[in-house]
Amino acid sequence: MLVEDVHFRMREATAFQIGWKAMARNISDIAAMGGVPRYALISMGARPDLEVPFLDRIFNGINSAAEIGEINIVGGDTVIAGKLTIDVSLIGEVEKERLVLRSGARKGDLIFVTGALGGSMKGKHLSFVPRLKEARWLVSRFKINSMIDISDGLSLDLWRILDASGTGARIYEDLIPVSKEARSFAGALRDGEDFELLFTITANEAKRFFKSPVIGTGTPITCIGEITARSEGYNLIRANGKAEKLKPEGYLHF
Amino acid sequence: MLVEDVHFRMREATAFQIGWKAMARNISDIAAMGGVPRYALISMGARPDLEVPFLDRIFNGINSAAEIGEINIVGGDTVIAGKLTIDVSLIGEVEKERLVLRSGARKGDLIFVTGALGGSMKGKHLSFVPRLKEARWLVSRFKINSMIDISDGLSLDLWRILDASGTGARIYEDLIPVSKEARSFAGALRDGEDFELLFTITANEAKRFFKSPVIGTGTPITCIGEITARSEGYNLIRANGKAEKLKPEGYLHF
Repeated sequence: MLVEDVHFRMREATAFQIGWKAMARNISDIAAMGGVPRYALISMGARPDLEVPFLDRIFNGINSAAEIGEINIVGGDTVIAGKLTIDVSLIGEVEKERLVLRSGARKGDLIFVTGALGGSMKGKHLSFVPRLKEARWLVSRFKINSMIDISDGLSLDLWRILDASGTGARIYEDLIPVSKEARSFAGALRDGEDFELLFTITANEAKRFFKSPVIGTGTPITCIGEITARSEGYNLIRANGKAEKLKPEGYLHF
Repeated sequence: MLVEDVHFRMREATAFQIGWKAMARNISDIAAMGGVPRYALISMGARPDLEVPFLDRIFNGINSAAEIGEINIVGGDTVIAGKLTIDVSLIGEVEKERLVLRSGARKGDLIFVTGALGGSMKGKHLSFVPRLKEARWLVSRFKINSMIDISDGLSLDLWRILDASGTGARIYEDLIPVSKEARSFAGALRDGEDFELLFTITANEAKRFFKSPVIGTGTPITCIGEITARSEGYNLIRANGKAEKLKPEGYLHF
């Protein structure tokens, strides 16, 4: 659910971008489970002062993003609201053997991310292409133990995998890919809305990645650390070699 | 999508009722197509000042209504919003031969409604039981040509059937069941949120109804008129026998 002045500001986003983002973030969520998106329901709460062409452009954005997958928009609702509100419900399908959950990380797994992290709010969050191709490429070729899309920052979303899997992790400052738009390393660690894939696989399975650090779709992937026993905690190894405890900090809605 | 101060006011509805209504109106929609509800996604935009127990009671209402059908809540989203906003997306299933659309009304069909109409805003709209049992009873025993649930008033929702089917209709003032809560006949005709079933079947099929005016579930059904050729228009026959043109008036969101 995207709400005006919470997830976007009207003066900072075009109608097309708002619609695109509403659909794309849902596709990202299904991609991160290894699935393909299929059916969407769109509910819109529209301010009475918005013009119909503006709402049409929102739907253009929604429809364009829907073409990333083969998504049928099968229903929805349109109501009056005080703030522009768009809720996309997306149903996907996944082959049982390709389904990936947050809870499958195991001690010894290596941790990977696609793309580069941080600074999404400078623009990427409105126009990103969800990593559907990449996720399908991964789950059809490798045994992915756990996966999530980074929507609330690496630090918090990796913690979600650790929490669900009952493990710890160690990630390395000098391995984490920082985007050009990130203010700093802290941004790469904690900024929200990257919509990159974060996943873990056994070291053995990972050997094949190391041979081709750019995955089949052209998107770079980077190994940023490893899964450890829960008792070892959640650690960031700084560039100087010092370990630092990580807390699950990032973009929290509450 | 239910929005605070548009679809409900906090001081006039309990948290449980808000949740109940959000789910029940969706069940009503699927029932009116002959289907059974199966999977739900719940998105909630919550004001930051609302307490967690209040939100829990909303979910109690949603879950209780979900028990009317065998509905699995499979996902959703929770975000901050300026007004409490609840969007329920509901996926249903229907046997191909039982699917009923708005577009199937044919000249000569008789028009029926369940229950009594009008005055729902006095309370029924917060606690109604969607006509799922009744709809399934109907579609499994009779050939229902067209059906809709009355959410925006008889006058407007019957017009939707006529518009989709390319027909006219004649309904009779003295046949339309007026609820005790309706202010007047006009209320039965135009008040929204009745969530009763409105359906049409051939006169031949209807004979079986006339033998048992209370349908198998105990809910009264009433014949209120008949489908005519489009060229005859949309007419209300007053108790004094005079015909009056009907306009598609009711509760419109815009």
